[in-house]
Amino acid sequence: MTNEQVFITDVGPRDGLQNQSRILSVEQRVQLIGALADAGVGQIEVGSFVSPKAVPAMAGTDLVVRQLQADNHYTTPNVALIPNLKGYHLARSAGLSRVVMVLYASDSMAQKNVGMTMVEANRVTLQILDEAVGDGIQVIATIAVVFECPFEGAIDPSVSQSLVDQFIAAGAYQVVLADTIGAAHPQQVRALTASLVDRHVADSLGCHFHDTRAMGLANVHAALESGIRRFDSSIAGLGGCPFAPGASGNVATDDVAMMLAQMGFETGIDLAKLMIASDLACQLTGSTKGGRAKSWLVNQLQENPAWPEINKQPHQG
Amino acid sequence: MTNEQVFITDVGPRDGLQNQSRILSVEQRVQLIGALADAGVGQIEVGSFVSPKAVPAMAGTDLVVRQLQADNHYTTPNVALIPNLKGYHLARSAGLSRVVMVLYASDSMAQKNVGMTMVEANRVTLQILDEAVGDGIQVIATIAVVFECPFEGAIDPSVSQSLVDQFIAAGAYQVVLADTIGAAHPQQVRALTASLVDRHVADSLGCHFHDTRAMGLANVHAALESGIRRFDSSIAGLGGCPFAPGASGNVATDDVAMMLAQMGFETGIDLAKLMIASDLACQLTGSTKGGRAKSWLVNQLQENPAWPEINKQPHQG
Repeated sequence: MTNEQVFITDVGPRDGLQNQSRILSVEQRVQLIGALADAGVGQIEVGSFVSPKAVPAMAGTDLVVRQLQADNHYTTPNVALIPNLKGYHLARSAGLSRVVMVLYASDSMAQKNVGMTMVEANRVTLQILDEAVGDGIQVIATIAVVFECPFEGAIDPSVSQSLVDQFIAAGAYQVVLADTIGAAHPQQVRALTASLVDRHVADSLGCHFHDTRAMGLANVHAALESGIRRFDSSIAGLGGCPFAPGASGNVATDDVAMMLAQMGFETGIDLAKLMIASDLACQLTGSTKGGRAKSWLVNQLQENPAWPEINKQPHQG
Repeated sequence: MTNEQVFITDVGPRDGLQNQSRILSVEQRVQLIGALADAGVGQIEVGSFVSPKAVPAMAGTDLVVRQLQADNHYTTPNVALIPNLKGYHLARSAGLSRVVMVLYASDSMAQKNVGMTMVEANRVTLQILDEAVGDGIQVIATIAVVFECPFEGAIDPSVSQSLVDQFIAAGAYQVVLADTIGAAHPQQVRALTASLVDRHVADSLGCHFHDTRAMGLANVHAALESGIRRFDSSIAGLGGCPFAPGASGNVATDDVAMMLAQMGFETGIDLAKLMIASDLACQLTGSTKGGRAKSWLVNQLQENPAWPEINKQPHQG
């Protein structure tokens, strides 16, 4: 058993909500973010500064941020996704000190999302990163489709490696490897993360998995083995991807926090309070029942609120 | 990508069906076993020679075996579980050349299941193993609750290790590490399997996981990393455990075969035919919708029947 820390960013209020058929009000979004903060999640991706026409669910992210700042009993760091320079300026005006930007590991995904080649899109992001560094704003650079692109198939690991090298050298606070369509398997994850941890400080790297093929926890574990200690996950497994039909969403914070707790990692998360946030996410969106192991976890916490603490000493036979 | 082989034993017709509220007829059981054989599963646990009063769903296992022998177009090896010497004699009379016996890693589980201490229960099993070795019948010794007991908590790995040592020395064909209540996490699995693979031939070891805490695939991957190449799984995730309320069942053959195929392992399984077996399991039992990733996998196989073969070459950027 370890007491090592693992840092969880809940991306449900952004990556989760943007894929829901039901659009939540600013108040509902703030309520969900508050429940996640109450549960002790390390960081929350609270929205994105994207065109409200393109992503109606994210309209009013500035109001969400303002409301969170007004409710200043929450000290949980907030981040927001910015798709471009305009978004960056909006996030800066809103007073955010850390933002998330998207890189692309394939031309087709870059074309589909921003109408540029991969190299062009990443060059634009690099320019914004430069400005942010000057402004003292931290940038998390998330590489989309880092393992597999829905249009081009498997991505050569050297493409992802050179993007990580380039953005860390340019001053990114962190680079996150995103399995955007939930296509990665744990051998791939273990290999890519091991090679990156060899080249960079593990703390500058994170992973973002989707549970489309039920390998979310397997991939989290594979990355943990390589030394990765930062993960994105989504409360109640909210999320999905328009390019992955029949897919479930992001790996659930419910499941990740449960597995980490059982392994003895410290996440700062109170599992019982996390279940309150998960219930709220289910109720507000009507689109999920929570993490894959939720029924087990809820039952376990009712029977034994101290779980998994009591279970850390092995039985002597 | 590897072309290494992994051997899957589908335990659905035994571990799965014995936990269903609906009891299948001999004909239905044979039909399900036939669908699994058609799909190319390596081995099938076709039933158990247990008292029909104790486990009504397993009554008529002798008839199942006889029917399979009559339908001799199936060459898939069949095994059956035997709880005691009487069961062993029934299995031998039925003409089985390989049987599964249960060991216990905790006193409480042994008491609950067979009314003996762990040491007594395992001594009885050792006596049957002796007789089987004399009869030329192979014995797979499955250690129940090898990671955690629902009554005693975590099991000291040295208890499991010494059971494995003892039964391999006594001539067991294989020893299977069973996470009977789906409580293991992948760090535990990695550690125990690594130490056992160091002491024994990997081929003499197998793993049996339940997906209660959604860590089934993570645990399979952790064991693969240690060199384990034999796994039990259950078609459509059939199964469960009376001691794990709210639990889902065994890790689904659907999910395991999908992950292994994506990793490039050879299992001999045709995924499309496996989905036919999974549909049949769902239809016959009415208790499951199939593997966790089934909706994704079915969609993928419809869109691209050659998946995952086409995806093995990395994109060059």
